[in-house]
Amino acid sequence: MMDERLRKQLDFSLEIDKEKNIFRQTHLTNYLRNENDAEHAWHMAIMAYLLREHANEDVDISKVMIMCLIHDIVEIDAGDTYAYDAENLKTQKAREDAAKERIFSLLPQDQKEEMIALFDEFEEAKTPEALYAHAMDNLQPLMLNDSNDGKDWRLHNVCASQVYGRQKTTKGGSEVIFNVVDEMIKKNVEKGNIRPE
Amino acid sequence: MMDERLRKQLDFSLEIDKEKNIFRQTHLTNYLRNENDAEHAWHMAIMAYLLREHANEDVDISKVMIMCLIHDIVEIDAGDTYAYDAENLKTQKAREDAAKERIFSLLPQDQKEEMIALFDEFEEAKTPEALYAHAMDNLQPLMLNDSNDGKDWRLHNVCASQVYGRQKTTKGGSEVIFNVVDEMIKKNVEKGNIRPE
Repeated sequence: MMDERLRKQLDFSLEIDKEKNIFRQTHLTNYLRNENDAEHAWHMAIMAYLLREHANEDVDISKVMIMCLIHDIVEIDAGDTYAYDAENLKTQKAREDAAKERIFSLLPQDQKEEMIALFDEFEEAKTPEALYAHAMDNLQPLMLNDSNDGKDWRLHNVCASQVYGRQKTTKGGSEVIFNVVDEMIKKNVEKGNIRPE
Repeated sequence: MMDERLRKQLDFSLEIDKEKNIFRQTHLTNYLRNENDAEHAWHMAIMAYLLREHANEDVDISKVMIMCLIHDIVEIDAGDTYAYDAENLKTQKAREDAAKERIFSLLPQDQKEEMIALFDEFEEAKTPEALYAHAMDNLQPLMLNDSNDGKDWRLHNVCASQVYGRQKTTKGGSEVIFNVVDEMIKKNVEKGNIRPE
C-alpha cells in the first residue's frame, strides 16, 4: 500500500492537470488559438535553460526552471488576469493567495512550504533567479505576439507605456533580454501594432 | 543589433512553440480533450521535481527536468506515435532522427550538441537521469488515464501486457513509482478497463 507522503505527491500531481485549462490572452504562433498556462510555463522553462548565459547574474538553473513551471499554478482557482486589465488586477492578489493555500496544501508539509517559498520568491522578483524567471515570463508572450504581427496588442488597443510597464522586471533579470524586448516593442510601435502612447 | 548566437537561440525558442499543436492519445482529467506534447512535458517535469526522492539513484534534477521538457520536440516534425500503434512504431526512429537534426540545428552548435546528447540519453534509457525521466513519461499518462476510469484503454481495447510493455523502463528509474503503476494497472484490469491478456 502507498504511504501518505507519496499519495499526497500524486494527488497534487493530478490536481495541477487543471492548469492546462487556464487560457491566456496570448495566441500561439500563426494565431492558431489562445495559449494555456501549462504551455506557457513549459515554453518559459526551456527558454530559461537555453538563455541562461544572458542572465545578469549566475543563476541556479534548476531553481529557475521549477519556478517557471509552477509560477501560474494558482490560476487553476484564480484564473488568468490579463496584464492590461486594471479592474481584475485589483483583486488578483487575494484570489491568488487563497488558491496558493488550497493547492499547495495538497502536498506534504515540507514540499508545500518549499513550493510556496518558490512561488513567493518569484512574485517578489528580487533574487537573481526570480528576476531572470520574470525576464522569461515577459519575453515569451512578447515573442509570440511579435510573431503574430502584434494582433493581440491591436485587438486590445495597447499602448507602448503599457507594454513597457509589463516589462519592468526584465532588465533586472537580463539586460541582454531587455534589449531584445526593447527592439521588438520599438519595431511594433513603428508598424502601428502598438500605440505610441 | 542582436548577435548571431542570441538570434539562433530565439529562433529555436519560437520554433518549438509548434509542439503545442502535437496532440497525444491521452486525455486530460475529466476527459476534456486530448493532451498535447508541451502540456505533457510540463507535467512530467514538475512531477520529476516533486517525486525525485523516489528515484532509485540520486539524480541531477536540472538535467532530468530539461530532458523531460525537450524529449518530445522531434514530434513537431515526426508527429506523435501512439504507444500501441505497431505500424507507425516501425518508422518512428527514422522520422524522429530527421526531425532531431532539423530542429536542434536551429540552435548554436554547442547547444545543438548538448540538446541532441540529452535527447539521445533519454532515448537510450540507461543513465539514472534518463531512467527516472522515463518513469515520469510512463507514469504521467497512466495517471491521467486512471483518473478517467481507463477510457483511453477501453477505446483502444488495450491489454495488460501492452500496458506493462509500455512501463518496461519504469522500474529501472524508480521501484517506488513502478509499484504505483503496477497497482494502477491491476486495479484497471479488475475494473475491466484493461483486458487481462
